[in-house]
Amino acid sequence: MSCFKMRKEGRLTRWIGWTVVMAALLLLGFIIGWFAKPTRPNTPNDTASGKYLREFLDEMQPEQIREHLRKLTRLPHLAGTEQNLKYAEQIMKEWKEYGLDSVEMVPYDVLLSYPNKTQPNYISIIDQLGSEVFNTSLAEPVPEGYEDVSNIVPPYSAFSPKGQPEGDLVYVNYGRTEDFFQLERDMRVNATGRIVIVRYGKIFRGNKVKNAMLAGAKGIIMFSDPADYWAAGVQPYPDGWNLPGGGAQRGNVLNLNGAGDPLTPGYPAKEYTYRLSLEDGVGLPKIPVHPIGFHDAINLLKNMGGPIPPNNWKGALNISYRIGPGFTDDFKSQKLRMNIHSNNQITRIYNVIGRIRGALEPDRYVILGGHRDAWVFGGIDPMSGAAVVHEIVRSAGRLISKGWRPRRTLIFASWDAEEFGLQGSTEWAEDNAKLLQERAVAYINADSAIEGMYTLRVDCTPSLHTLVYDLTKQIASPEEGEEGVSLYESWHKRDNWTDNRDAPRISKLGSGSDFEAYFIRLGIAAGRARYTKNKKTERYSSYPVYHSVYETFEVVEKFYDPSFKRLRAVAQVRGGLIFQLADSQLLPLDVNQYADALGKYAQSIAQLGHRHPEEMNTYRVSFDSLFSAAENFTVAARDFHERLQTLNKADPLQLRIVNDQLMYLERAFIDPLGLPGRPFYRHVIFAPSSHNKYAGESFPGIYDALFDIQNSADKQKSWEDVKRQISIAAFTVHAAAMTLTPPA
Amino acid sequence: MSCFKMRKEGRLTRWIGWTVVMAALLLLGFIIGWFAKPTRPNTPNDTASGKYLREFLDEMQPEQIREHLRKLTRLPHLAGTEQNLKYAEQIMKEWKEYGLDSVEMVPYDVLLSYPNKTQPNYISIIDQLGSEVFNTSLAEPVPEGYEDVSNIVPPYSAFSPKGQPEGDLVYVNYGRTEDFFQLERDMRVNATGRIVIVRYGKIFRGNKVKNAMLAGAKGIIMFSDPADYWAAGVQPYPDGWNLPGGGAQRGNVLNLNGAGDPLTPGYPAKEYTYRLSLEDGVGLPKIPVHPIGFHDAINLLKNMGGPIPPNNWKGALNISYRIGPGFTDDFKSQKLRMNIHSNNQITRIYNVIGRIRGALEPDRYVILGGHRDAWVFGGIDPMSGAAVVHEIVRSAGRLISKGWRPRRTLIFASWDAEEFGLQGSTEWAEDNAKLLQERAVAYINADSAIEGMYTLRVDCTPSLHTLVYDLTKQIASPEEGEEGVSLYESWHKRDNWTDNRDAPRISKLGSGSDFEAYFIRLGIAAGRARYTKNKKTERYSSYPVYHSVYETFEVVEKFYDPSFKRLRAVAQVRGGLIFQLADSQLLPLDVNQYADALGKYAQSIAQLGHRHPEEMNTYRVSFDSLFSAAENFTVAARDFHERLQTLNKADPLQLRIVNDQLMYLERAFIDPLGLPGRPFYRHVIFAPSSHNKYAGESFPGIYDALFDIQNSADKQKSWEDVKRQISIAAFTVHAAAMTLTPPA
Repeated sequence: MSCFKMRKEGRLTRWIGWTVVMAALLLLGFIIGWFAKPTRPNTPNDTASGKYLREFLDEMQPEQIREHLRKLTRLPHLAGTEQNLKYAEQIMKEWKEYGLDSVEMVPYDVLLSYPNKTQPNYISIIDQLGSEVFNTSLAEPVPEGYEDVSNIVPPYSAFSPKGQPEGDLVYVNYGRTEDFFQLERDMRVNATGRIVIVRYGKIFRGNKVKNAMLAGAKGIIMFSDPADYWAAGVQPYPDGWNLPGGGAQRGNVLNLNGAGDPLTPGYPAKEYTYRLSLEDGVGLPKIPVHPIGFHDAINLLKNMGGPIPPNNWKGALNISYRIGPGFTDDFKSQKLRMNIHSNNQITRIYNVIGRIRGALEPDRYVILGGHRDAWVFGGIDPMSGAAVVHEIVRSAGRLISKGWRPRRTLIFASWDAEEFGLQGSTEWAEDNAKLLQERAVAYINADSAIEGMYTLRVDCTPSLHTLVYDLTKQIASPEEGEEGVSLYESWHKRDNWTDNRDAPRISKLGSGSDFEAYFIRLGIAAGRARYTKNKKTERYSSYPVYHSVYETFEVVEKFYDPSFKRLRAVAQVRGGLIFQLADSQLLPLDVNQYADALGKYAQSIAQLGHRHPEEMNTYRVSFDSLFSAAENFTVAARDFHERLQTLNKADPLQLRIVNDQLMYLERAFIDPLGLPGRPFYRHVIFAPSSHNKYAGESFPGIYDALFDIQNSADKQKSWEDVKRQISIAAFTVHAAAMTLTPPA
Repeated sequence: MSCFKMRKEGRLTRWIGWTVVMAALLLLGFIIGWFAKPTRPNTPNDTASGKYLREFLDEMQPEQIREHLRKLTRLPHLAGTEQNLKYAEQIMKEWKEYGLDSVEMVPYDVLLSYPNKTQPNYISIIDQLGSEVFNTSLAEPVPEGYEDVSNIVPPYSAFSPKGQPEGDLVYVNYGRTEDFFQLERDMRVNATGRIVIVRYGKIFRGNKVKNAMLAGAKGIIMFSDPADYWAAGVQPYPDGWNLPGGGAQRGNVLNLNGAGDPLTPGYPAKEYTYRLSLEDGVGLPKIPVHPIGFHDAINLLKNMGGPIPPNNWKGALNISYRIGPGFTDDFKSQKLRMNIHSNNQITRIYNVIGRIRGALEPDRYVILGGHRDAWVFGGIDPMSGAAVVHEIVRSAGRLISKGWRPRRTLIFASWDAEEFGLQGSTEWAEDNAKLLQERAVAYINADSAIEGMYTLRVDCTPSLHTLVYDLTKQIASPEEGEEGVSLYESWHKRDNWTDNRDAPRISKLGSGSDFEAYFIRLGIAAGRARYTKNKKTERYSSYPVYHSVYETFEVVEKFYDPSFKRLRAVAQVRGGLIFQLADSQLLPLDVNQYADALGKYAQSIAQLGHRHPEEMNTYRVSFDSLFSAAENFTVAARDFHERLQTLNKADPLQLRIVNDQLMYLERAFIDPLGLPGRPFYRHVIFAPSSHNKYAGESFPGIYDALFDIQNSADKQKSWEDVKRQISIAAFTVHAAAMTLTPPA
């Protein structure tokens, strides 16, 4: 009985107990289930992404890059030629094999320029009867091993008009704006109606041509002076990497200012696209232009008469560098004649576009683009870069095969006709402008991956600085004897940032490569990385064999990077950048870095203005609005950064909203009206100066207006221009700050 | 024992049993917990949103609108005056009380224009000694009940330069481009050096002034002819709503083409903003301009000499409408003198900006904006619209107090200085351009809510058509005797779309109100709605008392909408639009409607071209690229729409991606380079023609180029312009189609 009573009483207790336990279990299960379920499936965490980054970087191999470079530099592949199409097809095929989701060929029909095959270009010294006393060479001596190669285009200035101007020669140093001013004001020599000869270097060759036109010259010759294309103690190619005396620098001489195809500015050059007439084409020079090597240059320069110039006008040739006009008394009757027969011609070009679709945000694009077309073999420019891109694509394909897929879409581009004015990349940007404007997170450029043997060089927008530093700490130095040293340390040791900043130097983006339309026209965060020379000791422009026939596979293999480890390091930097930009939950863009940069730029542009203290006073010019805009931006950036700390990354909408603010920050610096007279240069913070396409200036609108002050006839008007540009810059910085505040 | 044994055995079984049950319970709990947890919290469903929409619409009351209108029309409140600031402060205060999250006052310093208070503007007929024989009136007779009101600005043409030109009068009908051509070619009368007089109507007055300047006139007078401002069988105010003979139409005579403040084109007119000089200001007329009523006009016109014009040049005055130049023989010695002393003056204006923060997507903006400044009382223009906005804000505040919060951010704007060239709205758009470009979903305009007593009028972008139809089916007709009839049915019955489409007519947006910068410059989907007249029977322009002192509260209360139900219906349409745009999960924008519209526009612009079949042949002009672009767009739109059917709306990223495509579609029609010569008109599909700011043309670039054909001296060049514009339009439509394809 007690047993049963116990049971009876026990049952009730137990029943209650069990019920409680069961309820508790149910609740526990519920709670576990509730919290076990992710707020959103498929949120990749950044740890997994980090593991994949390591695999991605480690997959890249020097030997592979060597092979890519070898196979892509066997034959000349000028834009618009059959061989360049063949390489495009090969790249398309291999990218598909590597595992990209899609690869397509995208053609445009753009204006290119070629020498006439039956009537070569050259320059003559003629006597009073018009007979040719001396002619410049028609081609560069072909390097060993390439004797049987056809289709090597001789040195020429692409887009030079046809013409046979005759006249006296005037030497104008580098052909810079200041050189022409010095010529006319100090030396009292007029270039009008004459043929000018200038040395290559310091500024973009198209600017030299423009300056010559403005000075009234009827033709312009450019030569490579050993002072600018010759490294001390180095043999000329093939025994070293210096430019032989018979070598010359090809290149276009356009002043496009970002227009792309000269006949279809603003629009992609498709079949149905309206084309301007050649007369109305953008940036086409109106006077004949031709490039020569220094062997030929000596013959043109040695007998020149006129005053001896200041020392900074003298190159390294054993001549006196007299400025002319014309020859000395002994040769007074001789003149110069240019013989230019090149043709402008609408030609089909081909971009190759590959894609890896983003897993979560397919509508966010991270782009890695570099050109494929080369003047001849393109050993350095651009194939050292193209080989690197090839290896990055191969490595990305390997990850894909292991199940990885980036959060955002990756786009790989092999651009055509960069050498003819960034045409392939610009036409594609025009074609896709609306998509890119809404969706592009970043553009990483991949032109030549090496131009020296010293250390890393990075030019990028300030918001990428932090990512570049973080990344290079995860990459090994490629230098011998630096095992266990990071690329960051190696770079830092060799090129520390000056002004009170203890970090490797990063420079501003200028122009001269395919990032231009993406960064300066569309306002997409951009950067580029390559291996470079020691700027402090190596003073030559670019690298000696630049744009000559001597840019071969061998110049890289024998001299620049025999182990191909430098190129691997560049591949890891370029690849690592796009990986992190595409796969990080939170975009790795640092708004505080932009704020710091803006503050410094405001300081330095104001200093430039204050070189004219009286005039600034007279015309009531002040940089105060710009300083207060930069301060305002700094506060907004700091507040934004603080809010990031409390961001709930698990909420996909909150994350997207913040990422959109990060992505669109660069866009906020775009002025839809463009810089004065340059509708396709629209970035108010960064653009080349009007006087040198290569140099990136900060606040280029103000910079150019201040540049004009020195030689202005109407000071009042010029200072009004400065004031207007300061106002526009201040507004733009304020507006950009607004994009960082909470959205409502 | 058995008891214990039983227990022992039972315990094992039971233990196993309980374990299973417990595990099952835990699992059950887990499963319930898992599935009970929403994939994303806070997903509002559209049913709840629908319930709130009903409450939102029902909350709006005629009596409330009546009160808002009454209190906001007591005193004149011209832009830049103290009273207009007071109304701004009142609106700000009341919007806060209604419950908006924030309300702020946003000032700009823009160029306005006022008559000189001590030197009135008028026009004289002078005799040969220069003595004034007749002078036009200095003011309109003040309406009953407003006799003691001060600060009624007399009729004037804002931004007329000062001047006292003398000369013979030439009558040029409406002053349209074609009128001036007819004058010069057919009637052989030259306007050069003369003062032209034109009647108001058909086109924007600024275009008349521009045409007069181009014709070389030294001044221009505009009058309101009863043929254009007089409804049959209606008494003049105050006994009816017709314009009295002493009434005249004020208005600005700028040709801004979307620039906003004439001195700060492209940038907001802030304290630090650089200002152009008056000579360089955008769109300022260079010849004196003045408006008069028809009593004064009779006196200027009645003695005119010269030929009798064709009938379509004759108005409804009892005169012969001779075109001059000058007077008939009896009055040959008399001339005309204009006396204009107005001042341009940089003046502070104030926008009021209110916000309701979006719950889930605070970075998506839906804007309802309308102006507050009025020429005098603004009984119709703009306060009938402002009263409606006030009621919408009050109703939204009520919902907020009930716990509602829209998915996206709502922005309410009370613009200033619309009458002086849409300045308040344009400066704010310039100030916020970067935010708006990335974030604005739609802009709904709220100028005058009524201009007739007949039915609804909607002008909007094609993607809003479907929403307008859906919404008006949920709103009651305000017409007496139409109880139980929807606004849609009532509207449909009165104004059916013509060309084979059985639905109420919706028109294209032109310009002339504050949506301009948002739609035509920035490419934000936009629309406007108001109550209107019967266009088939009522042929006058706008409405008779437009921009006169007779636009009072009473003209609305006594004639246009005594029950205030029409204004309520307009409030419900405008309010319903912003509600649905802000609160729907999926944006209620219909890409198929845009496709249909593009197809039709391509047809009609091609028809316009084919009026010149021989020339089209000669100059090889084809619209084929435009047709194939429109077809391509149609396919992309249909595919997009199909994919919508399978969209997983529970995935916040997928939903956002699709909504972004919808939002950015309108943006895709923007050409950053602008239409030819009009940098701030950038919408390739919709913009006013260069010849009439009021009329929205489709493919305005092509339209203008074709317009120029008729009078072109260089046909070749003109047809090249047409071809270029066709190419740009085709490209833009292709590019827009790309934005609708899957993003990667």
